[in-house]
Amino acid sequence: MKRIGYVLVAVVAVVGGVAYMGFSPALAGGAASPVFDVEIPAGYRDWRLISVAHEEGNLNDLRAILGNDIAIQAYRDGKLPFPDGAIIARLAWNYVPSEENNKVFGRSQSFVAGAATNVQFMVKDSTKYAATGGWGFAQFNAGKPVDEAGLSGCYSCHVPVKARDFVFTRYAP
Amino acid sequence: MKRIGYVLVAVVAVVGGVAYMGFSPALAGGAASPVFDVEIPAGYRDWRLISVAHEEGNLNDLRAILGNDIAIQAYRDGKLPFPDGAIIARLAWNYVPSEENNKVFGRSQSFVAGAATNVQFMVKDSTKYAATGGWGFAQFNAGKPVDEAGLSGCYSCHVPVKARDFVFTRYAP
Repeated sequence: MKRIGYVLVAVVAVVGGVAYMGFSPALAGGAASPVFDVEIPAGYRDWRLISVAHEEGNLNDLRAILGNDIAIQAYRDGKLPFPDGAIIARLAWNYVPSEENNKVFGRSQSFVAGAATNVQFMVKDSTKYAATGGWGFAQFNAGKPVDEAGLSGCYSCHVPVKARDFVFTRYAP
Repeated sequence: MKRIGYVLVAVVAVVGGVAYMGFSPALAGGAASPVFDVEIPAGYRDWRLISVAHEEGNLNDLRAILGNDIAIQAYRDGKLPFPDGAIIARLAWNYVPSEENNKVFGRSQSFVAGAATNVQFMVKDSTKYAATGGWGFAQFNAGKPVDEAGLSGCYSCHVPVKARDFVFTRYAP
């Protein structure tokens, strides 16, 4: 069995005005999953809107994609790749029919945001996350981080949009 | 025929840091539609997110509801009625399936924001808009205001949610 040596390194980085602190294993000779160590950025619920979406199927949610100032500026400037410090947040809520709204419309057509499901982040740091297109990925379920194994598929799913710096969401005018 | 006298009054109001200017007819003894004179508030695209929604049917859109600082604060404080100066913006975009996203998910499930359809605003001014629950209503199609006749139904549609100060959208956690 190949030995994977971990050296714990304290990392304190200020990205987009948000301080992160975590322990990042320095991987020695292994094909281990990347370790992102992304914390919930303070104040992300106040960030500006990039766009909105709806996923059917198992997800069955309504979602909003928000960006910190660096991300929003890059979107509006049409600048790729996103600069270091850009953070994109994907919030999601259960997809809930609104009887209240339907009564007013006189037909069943209205769906609103219910309880929050989870929040995801993409954090740009071209050095720290060089192995994954410069992006660190994170998901929090009720404030609890999904472990690294749970994030191992994030990057590969984003590869099809490599030409847009691995970001699916387009800016809504 | 009942004579309706109009007196044009120049109105300059600063609501929530946004300067409005319009001409407001002072209605004399008529049951005329209210005249809202709401202009597009500068910088509304930068406002914070209240919630998201999807309307099927003729609307067939994805929408984001944003609030200026006064509106967001009132939402977060659970304060009703909304104070004067609160403005709520409803942006909407065509509901578009995303083939790009569907390929990644391996099934047809993803809908994203396409071209913008129209933008609506509710502006709280309990004096100016006393006849309509304290709210002025506006809609802009490609930047062009919908005329007063087109807005005459706004208030009556919002009456069913009078208990929430005539506002349908609840804050998404």
